[in-house]
Amino acid sequence: MTFSIQKMAQQAKKASIQVAQLDTATKNKILLTIADNLRADEKKILAANAVDIENAQANDLPAAMIDRLLLDHDRIEGIAQAVEYIASLADPVGLVTKTDRLPNNLIVSKKRIPLGVIAMIYESRPNVTIDAAALCFKAGNTVVLRGGKEALHSNLALAESLQIALKQFDIDPAAVSLVPDPDREIMNELLTLNEEIDLLIPRGGENLIRYVSQNSRIPVIQHFKGVCHLYVDKMADEVKALDILVNGKVQRPSACNSLETLLVHKDRAESFLPAAAAKLNEMGVKVHACEQSLKYFENADLATDLDYDAEYLALEIAVRVVDDYDQAVEHIQRFSSDHTEVIITQDISLANKFVQQINSAVVMVNASSRFSDGGELGLGAEIGISTSKLHAYGPMGLESLTTEKFVVMGDGQVRS
Amino acid sequence: MTFSIQKMAQQAKKASIQVAQLDTATKNKILLTIADNLRADEKKILAANAVDIENAQANDLPAAMIDRLLLDHDRIEGIAQAVEYIASLADPVGLVTKTDRLPNNLIVSKKRIPLGVIAMIYESRPNVTIDAAALCFKAGNTVVLRGGKEALHSNLALAESLQIALKQFDIDPAAVSLVPDPDREIMNELLTLNEEIDLLIPRGGENLIRYVSQNSRIPVIQHFKGVCHLYVDKMADEVKALDILVNGKVQRPSACNSLETLLVHKDRAESFLPAAAAKLNEMGVKVHACEQSLKYFENADLATDLDYDAEYLALEIAVRVVDDYDQAVEHIQRFSSDHTEVIITQDISLANKFVQQINSAVVMVNASSRFSDGGELGLGAEIGISTSKLHAYGPMGLESLTTEKFVVMGDGQVRS
Repeated sequence: MTFSIQKMAQQAKKASIQVAQLDTATKNKILLTIADNLRADEKKILAANAVDIENAQANDLPAAMIDRLLLDHDRIEGIAQAVEYIASLADPVGLVTKTDRLPNNLIVSKKRIPLGVIAMIYESRPNVTIDAAALCFKAGNTVVLRGGKEALHSNLALAESLQIALKQFDIDPAAVSLVPDPDREIMNELLTLNEEIDLLIPRGGENLIRYVSQNSRIPVIQHFKGVCHLYVDKMADEVKALDILVNGKVQRPSACNSLETLLVHKDRAESFLPAAAAKLNEMGVKVHACEQSLKYFENADLATDLDYDAEYLALEIAVRVVDDYDQAVEHIQRFSSDHTEVIITQDISLANKFVQQINSAVVMVNASSRFSDGGELGLGAEIGISTSKLHAYGPMGLESLTTEKFVVMGDGQVRS
Repeated sequence: MTFSIQKMAQQAKKASIQVAQLDTATKNKILLTIADNLRADEKKILAANAVDIENAQANDLPAAMIDRLLLDHDRIEGIAQAVEYIASLADPVGLVTKTDRLPNNLIVSKKRIPLGVIAMIYESRPNVTIDAAALCFKAGNTVVLRGGKEALHSNLALAESLQIALKQFDIDPAAVSLVPDPDREIMNELLTLNEEIDLLIPRGGENLIRYVSQNSRIPVIQHFKGVCHLYVDKMADEVKALDILVNGKVQRPSACNSLETLLVHKDRAESFLPAAAAKLNEMGVKVHACEQSLKYFENADLATDLDYDAEYLALEIAVRVVDDYDQAVEHIQRFSSDHTEVIITQDISLANKFVQQINSAVVMVNASSRFSDGGELGLGAEIGISTSKLHAYGPMGLESLTTEKFVVMGDGQVRS
């Protein structure tokens, strides 16, 4: 029998009716069992992972990619603990977010419900399989998982372990469905299943996300790139500015919330840029500087619009001196990826103006862009980040995996 | 110079930065001026409308369509009053919906902001031009309007009147842009402008909405049809049930929130169906009845799955007797369009169960489905209705034309 992605999605939709009705205590009990099973199945999972690693080596995949693929005792323990953490989070489902009594005595409430069926398309990290499944399940959804072909054996072993836990509680294992065939045509068919799937979340590089967005008939959570700006204002505290610059660029350059462009008020260039240059040089950061700032940096090249548009995801940064606050805002509005922008200033009025004027998903005053993350912003865990404004904007937690229905309680009212 | 829809959308995007920053008082003053201008421009608008009516008559358009097209003094007054009403509604923009202080003393808030640029694609009613423009503007958005070709002259005159009010306040008139060319290819190009347009709202028949959804690269608010169910439970109050049945089916059968299917518990069939049959017959409602209920109706035909799936939008209804509550829920889950479902019962536990189990956009107990409307549910005014769960679900008011950004206030915090 050949594999049918549509049939898998239909079964996930059928299972979503059951999963949506589970109460919080039951969902948590199942999640804890999933964590236990993963630990108990370590040998099986590592054996499957060894096949993926062997194939990856045979195919000469880059070392960084092989490292992302690799599972070991500690990583499986980490995955299990993440599931336990998700069990500990508050359940958004069932929350009544609003209640009004209307003049005709209808009582109108809004109540959180699961979205239904979520599809995840992701690349090589096998931990996403369990992480995404646990988050979707906690929010009462079922999920169709389509991971990278490099991790297929690992993903199958992880999903099987998880499904055994579901079956122990008489949950339809289709609640967490893993696409067993990494064929591209099957993924393309998945993108057309808007009758079965409510939301599609791609996780991976910009190319994957663009491909999925352009070809999907299912609504997609989009996040192409993070070109995060740091604006050091005339009234900046330079100590904070330097800490936040270094933290934003160096702490984890491969993250989408790391800094890509530094804007400095012209009155601050002379005092701030030499200090910044020394620190960036010490940290091995390559600089692309505007004409006015070029002189402060050793080995910097002249920045072009391509630099201002770039998401380096590496130890590289664009630097530009601006005439004033307005020019900084113009620069950000032109080059922003709608992800995260930071102002460093002690001027409270200007800080408020920045917060009012900049409509990126996350706007920060005197704090590192690296906090632009679901976990760091208090959402508990993050399923993804959206830089398009529909449905969710910014880091997405469990609540983003739900919607609200209207509940109307009457006593025989009709419309006149 | 040929018309460029992309250029129009780019200008709307540019204008959206200005409009997003307007405060509530200014927006309201502009809206009141728009209303005044419409009244003052009545002659011009009626002259333009006369051209559309003449063309419609020359093209033998159906009388109902010509009536939808027609403007007169009272209708223009109605349009102006609707704008004044929108001015009186609460402004969602700028609302802080949540604030938390995190352990590291970051203060994280969520703040409502406009979506940006909204495109509306609609059919023949010219009042939608002003109504949609006023709603989008009140929520701080700019809008690209693409109305039906039959109403083009009326729409151009209405938009011109509105744009004069914008200019009086130095607002870029691109804030409300009307596509002056009804060519289908231009609409198709509009559907690809996802860099410029944040949300697309089609308003019209199922064919228009399906076409737009299938071809759009911009996120679309979808509402294909409303197959609303009324379930009369074993414990129903039959007086309420009959009132709500008649109101739901007869008061305005062409509305998407009118009833299309009546489900009756088998223990209630004998007492309720003869009364329902008499009333429906009196009101001229054609009935498609299941085998068990056929005998109660004169001139009914046997219902098929096609009837249970139909949105009649007319004085027609499908009727089915169900064995029990569970069978009613199964029927609804199978045939629901996720719009509105109603239970009539005096059993509070069963009412709660229904509210819990049914995840349509609007779930009602002992009230008419005709209340499933933005105005009736207290949203003020309605820009549309969504039966897909992303972003908005159910009737959409001003709040649905906004999103939320994160605002993070720090004092030099960096991530460790």
